[in-house]
Amino acid sequence: MAENRRIAVLVTDGVEDVELTSPRSALLKAGYFPILIEDEAGKIIMGKHDNPFTIDEGIDSVSPDDFIALLLPGGYSPDHLREDPRYVKFTKAFMDAGKPVFAICHGPQLLITADAVKGRHMTAFKTIQVDLKFAGADVEDKTVVVDDNLVTSRTPKDLQNFNEAILKQLDGVTL
Amino acid sequence: MAENRRIAVLVTDGVEDVELTSPRSALLKAGYFPILIEDEAGKIIMGKHDNPFTIDEGIDSVSPDDFIALLLPGGYSPDHLREDPRYVKFTKAFMDAGKPVFAICHGPQLLITADAVKGRHMTAFKTIQVDLKFAGADVEDKTVVVDDNLVTSRTPKDLQNFNEAILKQLDGVTL
Repeated sequence: MAENRRIAVLVTDGVEDVELTSPRSALLKAGYFPILIEDEAGKIIMGKHDNPFTIDEGIDSVSPDDFIALLLPGGYSPDHLREDPRYVKFTKAFMDAGKPVFAICHGPQLLITADAVKGRHMTAFKTIQVDLKFAGADVEDKTVVVDDNLVTSRTPKDLQNFNEAILKQLDGVTL
Repeated sequence: MAENRRIAVLVTDGVEDVELTSPRSALLKAGYFPILIEDEAGKIIMGKHDNPFTIDEGIDSVSPDDFIALLLPGGYSPDHLREDPRYVKFTKAFMDAGKPVFAICHGPQLLITADAVKGRHMTAFKTIQVDLKFAGADVEDKTVVVDDNLVTSRTPKDLQNFNEAILKQLDGVTL
C-alpha cells in the first residue's frame, strides 16, 4: 500500500481525553492512521480525565514528511508540548508546507509558539481566543473555522462538526 | 486595627500548589493577610499536586478596594480563572489602580486577558513568555522582574526571589 494516510497526533499528559479519542475514532473509521507522538514509542500518557494512552512513535524517530496531516487535541497537553522546541518545529513544518492541521480547544497554543497564526482565520477555546488575537489571528467564536489547510474548533461540544471538517479536508487531499 | 494589610489571592483547581503555599507563608510571617478568593467562601479547591485549599472569600462578596495587593499563583488555575469575566475584571482593577500585583508562572495569563501587559517589563513561565510578547509586553527570561507595581516570576525554583520581591514591594506601600 503506497498511499500515505498517516496523521500525526501530538499529545502528552493532561490531554482532553475525548478530543483525542473522538477524532481518532473518526479517522480510523474513514481509513486513516492516527499515530500518537510524544517522547518515546510505548510510553503511557494519562489524559486529563485519567484515561491512559500508548504513544506510537517517538518525536525523534519521525519526520513531518511521514504524515499527510497533523492533529492537535486540547486540554493541558498543548501548553506542555510547546515547552519543547521539537514539537514546535514539528508543528511549524506542517503549517509551512500548507498541509492540513486540525487544532481544537488549547491545540492552537502550539501554533502560537510556532508563530503560525498571523492573519489566519481561526477559533479556539475561549481563553486562548484572546492569545490568538494578540498573536495576529482573525478570531471567530464559532464551532469550527476552516481557513485553507487550517481547521480549528473550540470544545468537546464541537467534536462532531470538527470531525466532519477534518474528514472533508482530508478528502480534498487524498482523493 | 485600621491599617489594611489584606492581599487578594485568586486561585482555583489546578493551582501549582507551592506557588500558593510559599508566598502565602512569606506574607503571613511578614504580617499580611493573604485571602484566597474563588466562587464561594468555604469551598475546597484542589492543587495540581492534590493539596486541598479552603477558599476564604467569594468573588461576588469582595471588592478590589478591600485589598492592598493581588497575588496570582500559577499552574492551571490562571487559565481557568480567565474564563470568568469576574476574575478578569478584579485583576484589571489592581492594574488600573497601580496597586502591587504579583504573578508567577502562568499567573500572567490573567493579565493578558485583562489587556494589562502592553509595554510592561515582565517575565512568566517559558510557554507564556511567547503569549506575553504577542500581547505587547517587554519580556525577559529572568528569575524575577519588577516593573513599578508589577512583580513577575517564572517557576517554583524562583520562589525565594519572588517572595523577597513581593515583601520589598509591600514595604514600599505600607511603610
